[in-house]
Amino acid sequence: MNNIKLVSSKGHERTTIRVGEVTFGKDFVVIAGPCSVESEKQTLAVAHAVKAAGAHLLRGGVFKPRTSPYGFQGLGLKGLKILVKARQETGLPVVSEVLDTRDVSWMCEYIDVFQIGARNIQNFSLLKEVGRARKPVLLKRGMYSTFAEWLNCAEYILSEGNPDVILCERGIRTFETYTRNTLDLSAVPAVKELTHLPVIVDPAHGTGRTRLIPPMSLAAVASGADGLTVEVHGNPEAALSDGDQALTPLQFAEIMRKVFSLRAFMEGLN
Amino acid sequence: MNNIKLVSSKGHERTTIRVGEVTFGKDFVVIAGPCSVESEKQTLAVAHAVKAAGAHLLRGGVFKPRTSPYGFQGLGLKGLKILVKARQETGLPVVSEVLDTRDVSWMCEYIDVFQIGARNIQNFSLLKEVGRARKPVLLKRGMYSTFAEWLNCAEYILSEGNPDVILCERGIRTFETYTRNTLDLSAVPAVKELTHLPVIVDPAHGTGRTRLIPPMSLAAVASGADGLTVEVHGNPEAALSDGDQALTPLQFAEIMRKVFSLRAFMEGLN
Amino acid sequence: MNNIKLVSSKGHERTTIRVGEVTFGKDFVVIAGPCSVESEKQTLAVAHAVKAAGAHLLRGGVFKPRTSPYGFQGLGLKGLKILVKARQETGLPVVSEVLDTRDVSWMCEYIDVFQIGARNIQNFSLLKEVGRARKPVLLKRGMYSTFAEWLNCAEYILSEGNPDVILCERGIRTFETYTRNTLDLSAVPAVKELTHLPVIVDPAHGTGRTRLIPPMSLAAVASGADGLTVEVHGNPEAALSDGDQALTPLQFAEIMRKVFSLRAFMEGLN
Amino acid sequence: MNNIKLVSSKGHERTTIRVGEVTFGKDFVVIAGPCSVESEKQTLAVAHAVKAAGAHLLRGGVFKPRTSPYGFQGLGLKGLKILVKARQETGLPVVSEVLDTRDVSWMCEYIDVFQIGARNIQNFSLLKEVGRARKPVLLKRGMYSTFAEWLNCAEYILSEGNPDVILCERGIRTFETYTRNTLDLSAVPAVKELTHLPVIVDPAHGTGRTRLIPPMSLAAVASGADGLTVEVHGNPEAALSDGDQALTPLQFAEIMRKVFSLRAFMEGLN
Repeated sequence: MNNIKLVSSKGHERTTIRVGEVTFGKDFVVIAGPCSVESEKQTLAVAHAVKAAGAHLLRGGVFKPRTSPYGFQGLGLKGLKILVKARQETGLPVVSEVLDTRDVSWMCEYIDVFQIGARNIQNFSLLKEVGRARKPVLLKRGMYSTFAEWLNCAEYILSEGNPDVILCERGIRTFETYTRNTLDLSAVPAVKELTHLPVIVDPAHGTGRTRLIPPMSLAAVASGADGLTVEVHGNPEAALSDGDQALTPLQFAEIMRKVFSLRAFMEGLN
Repeated sequence: MNNIKLVSSKGHERTTIRVGEVTFGKDFVVIAGPCSVESEKQTLAVAHAVKAAGAHLLRGGVFKPRTSPYGFQGLGLKGLKILVKARQETGLPVVSEVLDTRDVSWMCEYIDVFQIGARNIQNFSLLKEVGRARKPVLLKRGMYSTFAEWLNCAEYILSEGNPDVILCERGIRTFETYTRNTLDLSAVPAVKELTHLPVIVDPAHGTGRTRLIPPMSLAAVASGADGLTVEVHGNPEAALSDGDQALTPLQFAEIMRKVFSLRAFMEGLN
Repeated sequence: MNNIKLVSSKGHERTTIRVGEVTFGKDFVVIAGPCSVESEKQTLAVAHAVKAAGAHLLRGGVFKPRTSPYGFQGLGLKGLKILVKARQETGLPVVSEVLDTRDVSWMCEYIDVFQIGARNIQNFSLLKEVGRARKPVLLKRGMYSTFAEWLNCAEYILSEGNPDVILCERGIRTFETYTRNTLDLSAVPAVKELTHLPVIVDPAHGTGRTRLIPPMSLAAVASGADGLTVEVHGNPEAALSDGDQALTPLQFAEIMRKVFSLRAFMEGLN
Repeated sequence: MNNIKLVSSKGHERTTIRVGEVTFGKDFVVIAGPCSVESEKQTLAVAHAVKAAGAHLLRGGVFKPRTSPYGFQGLGLKGLKILVKARQETGLPVVSEVLDTRDVSWMCEYIDVFQIGARNIQNFSLLKEVGRARKPVLLKRGMYSTFAEWLNCAEYILSEGNPDVILCERGIRTFETYTRNTLDLSAVPAVKELTHLPVIVDPAHGTGRTRLIPPMSLAAVASGADGLTVEVHGNPEAALSDGDQALTPLQFAEIMRKVFSLRAFMEGLN
């Protein structure tokens, strides 16, 4: 880890990032919402449901990085307006992925936290651009990123002046095909030792299977993660993207109950 | 998972395996001890220490699968006699790795559980041979094994007549070099759904770094694992093998305290 | 390969792309030049040398996707002007990497072929933007791209109206650390069967070791590749980026002699 | 590469190994035959066909390392007797895989070259046992072996007294699923630089697709390989194992014609 400077844990206090009612790096923060914003009705329903279950931020994709050009590409501006409405109704700050350097400045008016997805982890122009924005950045690990590379991507953002980066482990690509990716929970304690930035976990992309989300969410808490980001959909089977890894609101509420209970236990344990 | 029959969870009750005072698949079982049996003094000291900290079985390698032929290859029979003495003194059943089909039958007189290591996961002759033995088998996942292949390796053992197989996730080989391997905790819930066999976790080989063992041990508990296997050495820096991933007895005791506490909490949670 | 349509070999003739004096998909095309454009002097010297050795296009990076923000980021517009001067002097069309959607339209005035690097393989905004440009695109395989994903990335470009895509195998990320990546030459015949697009090979990034470039260049020819892209530097040890995989002009000339000779032989063989 | 001594190219002349009419490390040696010996009729027919097409050794598995215990496990001794008969009729020395330490000494009476398969690459007991045998050993790279590990496995054999090891690249396990494995041809020049042992290539297991075998065989020649091992079956669709990567005798003959022609050309080129 020779190159990292600003993100290194050496000589720096742990970063805390206030967003809405919670503080990343201090509270256990849960981000939840649909993979894609599909309609106002769907998004508002999910937003209310995740809020009721204890989520602190609402996520929802409006620009979707799809493998195929013929996949659903997201609602764009229309989707952002839906997210804003959901925020107004629920009070939940919103997180949404940005794909294009040209979208960073105007998106700031709509969203509270930028997400940089795994596929753009080494889109250095985009990292620099969000580094110049005044919004926190949720930086997902690339599916082929070493810890060293991932931290250097965070360094790109900090070196442009934006100190508010939240790291997110979301699984790496391995030879195993039963799971969509291999969720690397060792990233949580390893990276928290190397850097002062908060680290959360995405148990859905890491596994790609709904039934693995509850145990891996609990394992993430026990590993010391600072939070979770989870996809919730009113009707996963009809989702326009990633339906097989989305939770129903009921499943989400059940997991949250256990997650917050475990987190409270863990705080007493240490 | 087309090929698996005997190990499939379909149509079978969950397997429980009694060894000494504990039952794999029912109790949370901790296996601990030195990577290699180096001397009687070292082994007895570790055995007493891990027993005091709550371990249920003693592990210790006497045949070591080393990358280089010039690495320490283990004490062989002399080591087994030391393990027997440690069992006599502590009451802990012993687990030791077998590397050669010719050693299976006579080793049965000394050990309580055979370990098949990651490097021999597809040594089918050895799998068949322990399949004919009357001792439980701790079957580590190969560093390149898919879940399907791993379960087929267990199928080899069961199809020869030995029903007592304990699976052990120990990390897979990926592109990440900061950790020795990538511990795949999703294997725990995934494989427990596919098979009725118990699944434990080795957090040391999966990470290769002492400081990652405590959080990953807790994460393993939260993921639903049936136990842990951990390496403990009186003086890790002087160990003849794998010293950088061994715990001191003090570190081990500290982890055990938290692990058993978390396990008790988890049982109340579900 | 369900999703690909426009790039599929089914129902389409093989694509040929004329650039300067050569035609990708028909001639064996060699692209050569420095990793980074560092100065006019360096670039012109290399351009003349590679032209003399038989190269058909000049490559040179002016926007460099570096792991660390503190690495040399390229000369930008100044570098493009140097490439233009090199083209004027040598007649070699120029290839250069684009990193940002905002740079596509104005860079068209300077370059002849856009390169999309491995790190931007799933920067779908950028793929769409070069899809709207009127210049051929050299699309490198991502270090974590399956063939299916890579071809879908090409589909993004074609579906925006640009039919002129040249695929480039450059090595994938595996567990092997002796080589920088693992050059996957099976990609050449495999992808040429799946698509009608030309496929060339980058033997330098695939191996990261100068001494492996000659044999892998010859192997690429024998595998049926449509060309090569190679990095050449007047003084590799002083290069600002990737010096340990750059060839000297002398080494390059020696390889070219063999490559063209082998290519001629292979054409007689089939 | 700190540990290797006996196999290191430093301080040693290149190894040549005479088997029948050819010398590994000097001639370009082709090993061909069925994946499994299934019957006398099948094996003799293939043996005559591959001999006619220019093969120098006959391969055929009699102990098959199958993923599932319910897969065809090989004919054992009966198969060896068939191989001996094929040798008598064709004059081709025979290569066959050994899986069990107990089989090494008696198999020496039947076979000319032992094969250690990818799954047993770190079955160190078996490596030591063939190290004490007086027959050459064809040592396949494990699907998860680094060059360093692979060479250390060869070191195990040499350190027991057997100097006659032939290395065989056969593909490594990566995330790519279109091919069965990823054939790493860079292993040929890389390993030939590190060691004095001959290196051949198995283009069938590396790709798992019949149509990729011809181009990858030619690429292997161009990369500097010392030979090839290829699976040939009279009726691939009816093969008891690995039918989708076996060549018909006609396909094999066609490839051999090109392979030997290219090899002759390459010798003139260097």
